[in-house]
Amino acid sequence: MDSATAATLDALIRGQRVAALGTLRGGAPNVSLVAYLAAPDFARIHVRISRLAWHTQDLQRDPEASLLIAETDDGRTDAQTLARVTLRGRAVRMDVDDAACEALQRQWLARFPASVVTFELADFAFWSIAVRDARFVAGLGRTHNLSATDLAVAARQFRD
Amino acid sequence: MDSATAATLDALIRGQRVAALGTLRGGAPNVSLVAYLAAPDFARIHVRISRLAWHTQDLQRDPEASLLIAETDDGRTDAQTLARVTLRGRAVRMDVDDAACEALQRQWLARFPASVVTFELADFAFWSIAVRDARFVAGLGRTHNLSATDLAVAARQFRD
Repeated sequence: MDSATAATLDALIRGQRVAALGTLRGGAPNVSLVAYLAAPDFARIHVRISRLAWHTQDLQRDPEASLLIAETDDGRTDAQTLARVTLRGRAVRMDVDDAACEALQRQWLARFPASVVTFELADFAFWSIAVRDARFVAGLGRTHNLSATDLAVAARQFRD
Repeated sequence: MDSATAATLDALIRGQRVAALGTLRGGAPNVSLVAYLAAPDFARIHVRISRLAWHTQDLQRDPEASLLIAETDDGRTDAQTLARVTLRGRAVRMDVDDAACEALQRQWLARFPASVVTFELADFAFWSIAVRDARFVAGLGRTHNLSATDLAVAARQFRD
């Protein structure tokens, strides 16, 4: 992956804030919308979800998750040129006493101020998806299979 | 579902052109981006995919598919209020000699003119997802579980 491609990937993961989360439900895939926040090295993707939601029930039964982050459709002629990345890994519920949760809560509220109400509701929790691999489509015919290490390199190149 | 909610659903499915497709890959969910075209009654969702693509290989092994269509993120304060619908059903590859394919090809090219090249490539085909049920989130806390019949009613109300 050259540095321009890595920059596109970095901008995509950091620039978007909602993703399509794939979970396993009754043996079949189920896709739902979630807000997310990526760790600076893209090793983990954080979501804040309610145990009342289908996707949370799914992850409690089977932690395998797939997350699609796609460039916003700007109405261009060729929709296939939209950049997108699929991140795959296992999701674990974070303990509210986890020291990492405090910093995460600050970052989360800075990005999603309207979610403040979820911090007063007992059914919401942070879940962390440990990214195992990724498939990045930078555009038509420009597909890259990436390891977690590849992702970290792309993230490191463009971190502040 | 009241008529305003049905109108939102109708506008969402007809207004968007890309969706997140969930398939089963090695027993885990996998989500990828696809262009789609809905049948007028929302009973089927059509996609045009290459047998070289992961999602096509997945559907050949297991036809269960989940498709998330989401409102474009316009940067509003609360991302959770974005409307989205998850459609679930089984995907089948359409035969190129299927009479339905001719009309579909015209509609597809009208919506996706840049895809004309895929009609010269032998690895691309239309697949039809027969929608079994749907889960429509019209906004925070406004979730509707819908049957295929419910979808058809919503579609019929606002068809030209």
